[in-house]
Amino acid sequence: MDVVVHLISGIGGEQDTSFAIVENLLDADADIDELVVVAQSQGIEAVTAGGETEHKVRSLLDAGVSFVACRNTLDTMDLDESDLVDGVDVVPEGAVEVIRLQTEGYAYLRP
Amino acid sequence: MDVVVHLISGIGGEQDTSFAIVENLLDADADIDELVVVAQSQGIEAVTAGGETEHKVRSLLDAGVSFVACRNTLDTMDLDESDLVDGVDVVPEGAVEVIRLQTEGYAYLRP
Amino acid sequence: MDVVVHLISGIGGEQDTSFAIVENLLDADADIDELVVVAQSQGIEAVTAGGETEHKVRSLLDAGVSFVACRNTLDTMDLDESDLVDGVDVVPEGAVEVIRLQTEGYAYLRP
Repeated sequence: MDVVVHLISGIGGEQDTSFAIVENLLDADADIDELVVVAQSQGIEAVTAGGETEHKVRSLLDAGVSFVACRNTLDTMDLDESDLVDGVDVVPEGAVEVIRLQTEGYAYLRP
Repeated sequence: MDVVVHLISGIGGEQDTSFAIVENLLDADADIDELVVVAQSQGIEAVTAGGETEHKVRSLLDAGVSFVACRNTLDTMDLDESDLVDGVDVVPEGAVEVIRLQTEGYAYLRP
Repeated sequence: MDVVVHLISGIGGEQDTSFAIVENLLDADADIDELVVVAQSQGIEAVTAGGETEHKVRSLLDAGVSFVACRNTLDTMDLDESDLVDGVDVVPEGAVEVIRLQTEGYAYLRP
């Protein structure tokens, strides 16, 4: 099973839940193949270098989780790719990536 | 690709994000065919005439986006179809419309 | 049509919306077959015995709705199966259940 997690909320508790869920999905019993986190809007802060959750992003990247950030959000917030945690990819528009992955059969989670 | 955006949150930031995303999805590169916004619960205010986001709804309707509002929500909030921005359609229950569209292959976004 | 409702938010209004939607989905005109509510993270409180929404959970269980709670959340919150409303089932990880149901064709709602 493949899954895309939409990290779009600026609410701290919802971001924490997103990370906790992604960690739980790494459990072998969860039977997950591809796991992609799409960060956009207020959720982008959670994947910035120097942010409070940088260590979580690094640890999940090391564990094989893919992170992608929305370039439209970066532009709106006057951020650059270099402001993101190393290893986070960038896509033109986060929502389009979420839609594309769903059409490829990924399940959708919006914590 | 077809997509349904669930405008269900009463949080201003999440409503703003919904509109920003829908606008970005209109970009030709996004490759979106059908784009439907389903407003219900606290999200209904965003599609009312005279509301803060009426101009955004009008502009997106002009651009070909479909908006539908939930009649159950209207009834609960003592609102009428005439309270909505012109061009917003009404369905008996917003959630049922979201489910129906997903079963037709629409991707789901909940900003 | 089958649907899974993700009861993951700790925001009271969003929990209320979840219950209102599930109730509306029971309407024969909604044409819903299977209806599963997956409670996890901050949403777990809504399915605890003695909680403010216990009577709603009981009433929906009586009406044929399935409720499942996330064991990882229970463990994190130091809760036990016996703290849940009678009739609420437990799964190892709520998100995995949501993903599994989507791969079986269930539509996803995140109020």
